[in-house]
Amino acid sequence: MPNSLFLPTMLIDRISRPASLGEQPQAQVLPPALPSTLRRFRRGALLLCGLLLLGGAAEAEDIQSPNKQFTLSVNVQEGGVPTYSLTYKGRPVLKTSRLGLDLKNTTALTSGFTQTSAERRTFDETWQPVWGESKNIRNHYNELAVTLTQAQTNRVMRVRFRVFDDGLGFRYEFPQQKGLDYFTIKEERTQFALAGDHKAFWLPGDYDTQEYSTVTSRLSEVRGLMKAATTPNASQTPFSPTGVQTPLMLKSQDGLYINIHEAALIDYSAMHLELDDKNMVLESHLTPDAVGDKGLLQTPANSPWRTVIVSDKAGDILLSKLVLNLNEPTKFKDVSWIKPVKYVGVWWEMITGKSTWSYTNQDNIKLDSIDYRKVKPNGTHAANTAHVKEYIDFAAKHGLDGVLVEGWNTGWEDWFGKHKDYVFDFVTPYPDFDVQELSRYAASKNMKLIMHHETSGSVRNYERHLDTAFQFMNKYGYNAVKTGYVGDIVPLGHKHYDQWMINHYNYVLEKAAKYNIMVNGHEAVRPTGLSRTYPNLIGNEAARGTEYESFGGNNADHTTILPFTRLIGGPMDYTPGIFQTRISTFNPQNNSFVHSTLARQLALYVTMYSPLQMAADMIEHYNQHLDAFQFIKDVAVDWDDTRVLEAEPGDYITYARKAKGSPNWFVGSTCDERGRTSKIDLSFLEPGKKYVATIYADKKDAHYEKNPQAYQIRKQNVTSKTKLSQYCAPGGGYAISLMEAK
Amino acid sequence: MPNSLFLPTMLIDRISRPASLGEQPQAQVLPPALPSTLRRFRRGALLLCGLLLLGGAAEAEDIQSPNKQFTLSVNVQEGGVPTYSLTYKGRPVLKTSRLGLDLKNTTALTSGFTQTSAERRTFDETWQPVWGESKNIRNHYNELAVTLTQAQTNRVMRVRFRVFDDGLGFRYEFPQQKGLDYFTIKEERTQFALAGDHKAFWLPGDYDTQEYSTVTSRLSEVRGLMKAATTPNASQTPFSPTGVQTPLMLKSQDGLYINIHEAALIDYSAMHLELDDKNMVLESHLTPDAVGDKGLLQTPANSPWRTVIVSDKAGDILLSKLVLNLNEPTKFKDVSWIKPVKYVGVWWEMITGKSTWSYTNQDNIKLDSIDYRKVKPNGTHAANTAHVKEYIDFAAKHGLDGVLVEGWNTGWEDWFGKHKDYVFDFVTPYPDFDVQELSRYAASKNMKLIMHHETSGSVRNYERHLDTAFQFMNKYGYNAVKTGYVGDIVPLGHKHYDQWMINHYNYVLEKAAKYNIMVNGHEAVRPTGLSRTYPNLIGNEAARGTEYESFGGNNADHTTILPFTRLIGGPMDYTPGIFQTRISTFNPQNNSFVHSTLARQLALYVTMYSPLQMAADMIEHYNQHLDAFQFIKDVAVDWDDTRVLEAEPGDYITYARKAKGSPNWFVGSTCDERGRTSKIDLSFLEPGKKYVATIYADKKDAHYEKNPQAYQIRKQNVTSKTKLSQYCAPGGGYAISLMEAK
Repeated sequence: MPNSLFLPTMLIDRISRPASLGEQPQAQVLPPALPSTLRRFRRGALLLCGLLLLGGAAEAEDIQSPNKQFTLSVNVQEGGVPTYSLTYKGRPVLKTSRLGLDLKNTTALTSGFTQTSAERRTFDETWQPVWGESKNIRNHYNELAVTLTQAQTNRVMRVRFRVFDDGLGFRYEFPQQKGLDYFTIKEERTQFALAGDHKAFWLPGDYDTQEYSTVTSRLSEVRGLMKAATTPNASQTPFSPTGVQTPLMLKSQDGLYINIHEAALIDYSAMHLELDDKNMVLESHLTPDAVGDKGLLQTPANSPWRTVIVSDKAGDILLSKLVLNLNEPTKFKDVSWIKPVKYVGVWWEMITGKSTWSYTNQDNIKLDSIDYRKVKPNGTHAANTAHVKEYIDFAAKHGLDGVLVEGWNTGWEDWFGKHKDYVFDFVTPYPDFDVQELSRYAASKNMKLIMHHETSGSVRNYERHLDTAFQFMNKYGYNAVKTGYVGDIVPLGHKHYDQWMINHYNYVLEKAAKYNIMVNGHEAVRPTGLSRTYPNLIGNEAARGTEYESFGGNNADHTTILPFTRLIGGPMDYTPGIFQTRISTFNPQNNSFVHSTLARQLALYVTMYSPLQMAADMIEHYNQHLDAFQFIKDVAVDWDDTRVLEAEPGDYITYARKAKGSPNWFVGSTCDERGRTSKIDLSFLEPGKKYVATIYADKKDAHYEKNPQAYQIRKQNVTSKTKLSQYCAPGGGYAISLMEAK
Repeated sequence: MPNSLFLPTMLIDRISRPASLGEQPQAQVLPPALPSTLRRFRRGALLLCGLLLLGGAAEAEDIQSPNKQFTLSVNVQEGGVPTYSLTYKGRPVLKTSRLGLDLKNTTALTSGFTQTSAERRTFDETWQPVWGESKNIRNHYNELAVTLTQAQTNRVMRVRFRVFDDGLGFRYEFPQQKGLDYFTIKEERTQFALAGDHKAFWLPGDYDTQEYSTVTSRLSEVRGLMKAATTPNASQTPFSPTGVQTPLMLKSQDGLYINIHEAALIDYSAMHLELDDKNMVLESHLTPDAVGDKGLLQTPANSPWRTVIVSDKAGDILLSKLVLNLNEPTKFKDVSWIKPVKYVGVWWEMITGKSTWSYTNQDNIKLDSIDYRKVKPNGTHAANTAHVKEYIDFAAKHGLDGVLVEGWNTGWEDWFGKHKDYVFDFVTPYPDFDVQELSRYAASKNMKLIMHHETSGSVRNYERHLDTAFQFMNKYGYNAVKTGYVGDIVPLGHKHYDQWMINHYNYVLEKAAKYNIMVNGHEAVRPTGLSRTYPNLIGNEAARGTEYESFGGNNADHTTILPFTRLIGGPMDYTPGIFQTRISTFNPQNNSFVHSTLARQLALYVTMYSPLQMAADMIEHYNQHLDAFQFIKDVAVDWDDTRVLEAEPGDYITYARKAKGSPNWFVGSTCDERGRTSKIDLSFLEPGKKYVATIYADKKDAHYEKNPQAYQIRKQNVTSKTKLSQYCAPGGGYAISLMEAK
């Protein structure tokens, strides 16, 4: 990584110019003796001298964030190599980093460029999401669009940078042009040249799974830790000893928090990051398709945005709306059918091995020939009419919105790991699941059933059945579907995150929208803020959720990291709310346990933002702790405002959120395995008003492993002047409802 | 290839046993001292001695055809290797040939077998096809199903052989069993060990195209000729210097005609043949998918049938219904909507370069953003309303059934060779194609419009639009579709003939049937008799059709070979009827010419069997030769009876066919570049009846290149006693209608 040309950014900062549109080249300002790459140069003498002194290039543009804390510098270096660098409060965030792409069978778009124009503008709007963490979102940035021309090919590429008050987004744009109509990406060569050997919260880079435990280490330690970090998964394709996933959370030794991700992943393959651990340079690594190509584009086309969120306060990373802002506003005319959902489900009992998705114990079935009425039931099938009615009754009694039922449809006997093509038809219930009756029953209780479409990765099969499946949902009153992509993508060769699959996930969203159906995609690609454009994408998994507590467990600090990593792209259907954390109490075969206290399980409804929140435990466990369940009943799933009261990735997070259209607030806090005492003040409350705080907290002797159910609930009156000191047990947390006193 | 155990088949012939079902092993007849592989032996002493003298194996079964001309012998040889051999009239057709499959990541199904049962039966039925070359088809065979058990794995595989009076069909069957539920085929290892270095009519083996010119050579010459034979194609993946396609036509030095193909290709990849040119052994070579796998099966499952049609008369090969008989009867309840079709089309003018499929000359368009009303038309777009009406008028005036229109829909500007995903939507006409008006106009003239769905190989895109596209067809009265798969399959990695694509083609057939739509698949896999099961599959291309006459030409003997090769699997939409064979007369840019006389173009309606026959030339050319066009008007497209009057592959073919439900017959003859005089007798006519023969023939000075339009038409009265001597010019032919005299 040639970074000898890195300029002291304070220097550049001084000479940044106001935005102007459509500037023309000013070749006349250059002394004739300068090399031709210097034809365009539009800076003051100071910078010119600086560049010349450094022995090199060429064209440069810089631009600041509206609050002037960020300065982005774009340079075309010697050989026509486009680069950029970024500072925050005068401190280097990204050193000189190369831009460009390698193409298949044609000249790379990485060098030989001259800058032929630079356009600037300022943008400031405030918009309202259909659902979200706050009522209003401000989208405010200064934009610099640099047009680069490659003389050898006469091709034009534009790099559009948007500098926000909380970081940077940029993308490649390929205008329609004679010399570039269709092209195949061999690799994207976007660098993020870090200023040091940062602490990183990372997952092994993988084309097929995001379900790894986060490793916290210095970047220089990634290589040594990779093998152990790459734990088994139903489908996995790690690609490098230093490859990591996004969103990647970093913390510099001098206290800068940096998050790297992407926004608006459409018709492109998902980006990973390949680490050069000598120079601490991250470089984009796209997901290949079955023949190793990394994407076919047709001009005009854009890459997704590459995002760099930066702050010296950890909480600012959590509050950033940069990724959402870089997505397009929705084109949906009517969004009235999109509603946040709090739900229970027939699910945890299968994940923990207490009951089964399948209706029989056959191990080799064919949908088009099996007659389930003639096959012996296994007696462990959870999705039966009577049992589902219990969940409907419970949900209705406690004012929840919906009931998810998995394992309702035929085909589960050998759904997994077989690379089977015709694995499900998505419309045929098992004999003991009376869809008509349940549809009627749920409607009579004003309850929504939530559909489950496990595809088993057989994507063509799912697309073939999509219309019929959505029509079936419409017929029986389901308005949301949880999709699943467990196992290798069928046909083999495709990867969960290649362009073909990215296209598929978005196709499902668009098709679902036509049927007014909300989508919660599991094992699909990590979100990139697409819910702004497709607000029916109300959830994703795309990381280790609560299910892993049944497969050996998540680290106790897992939920102090996820909001800094996975959730940067969008909400996660984490499925919290497990009250009986010792699984062996109801399934002696399973010694796994939930690495959390009960109180923290409540906190997650606040700390793990999602408009779709499951109360994931079995209802018998809730009935044993209805006092604690009250918080799940009360907590909102949509918000007017959000504050971060404390945060440090890997250690603790405390959020306060104001319920949508309500004066009430909810606080949640989660900490790591060391426990701590949280000190917060309630100054976010409306001054002068009185609130009743109900505090659901760990007892002093609580511990996520040894004593997880030791919780206490206390009430106290509070105002905006109140300060609280609240204990979090190891692997614990607390939840507070703050209801306006009547 | 170990063939030292090949037994003189006359010996076996004598001791074949009657069919019996469910026979039990008779181990007790064996002397105790014999090796264990000889535990099961059920023959007379004569054969036992023969085997022992030959020093070897093991278990053996044989079975004869109903007419006793074929004897099949099945042996499990030393090491448990299953083999078979075949004789015809005592002459070896296939010497000892191995059976089995290599599997991925598990023990191969090629050795270690013992025969655990053998079941025999005789079957004789006569059935009526929905359309076909004869009213009744006899399906008569003796069957031997040999069950093989592999001790090491406890797996069971059955090989089912059917010996007909015209050859052999056999397939692998994999019953449902504990040890074999899902498995991936690494390669099928079915051998066809030929008895000599036969003359072969072959195409280069290729995963993506069948559009090669047939090469006629000895098998030993294949390797040397392969490179020149592998001519360029829009998508091609040759795989071996000795790989060839099926149907493969062979002729032995002693005059045996042998045809090797497959039947009922469903949920399996298409088979090619790999030649061991030292031993003259052909071995199956399946089409791999994107990761190199050759098929995933779930038990119970069967392979397609491997077929070997044999006769000492070439004409018998043409008349064989073995491939059809090995397909399952249709499950369609109502077939009244399936009707043979004679049609004209807006097509040849585009293929020859006179006009265009596309409406504009843009070279990079996006369906979701282009507004064709704002783009300049190129003025060469053939599928415009007025022009299509001319074709409707012509077809109606001359009593044809339909009009195909290509290039009617948006997207043709850059449809080809771009690996584009969203290339067509199949429902949006160009602005100058008024689908509503044309639908009305065609209906008013009792004419059917024929739909065209070019997919450009973008298969997911086609499947996504399939329902909408078929609904569009239903709405506008189209009842047949020509599909196309030009170019590489998208997503890349798939091949035109892999299991995933085979599944696709059949999916389209099933989906089309739900909409009462007939399908004519171009660039799809070569047919394997599936039209018995799916009678809406009324045509396929799957070889070089007339279009190649515009791309440099087909060999003059092309149509004397195709009925022996490509047509063994099913009808071909060859698109004959080109009267103006010199393309440069209407497109000076194109020097290609049709390698046929005009008279032969008429003959093709009889010699190239299809229920779907195009009069492919432009109507202005027909209007110049309405006397010759009369034959196209008269000729039937469905038949009660078919005879082969003369035939020699590569030299000449003369067919006589009796029109469906009519006393009239039609004769067609095509010969190679040498020309000849054909001597036929009309004894097939009903004795005692008088017929008027109209003979459309080459003049003496006709020649496919030098004088193609020199034809003469004469009438004469004939009876069943008439004998005719009829000249065929080089590259020529003749057509005769034989109408019952009123």
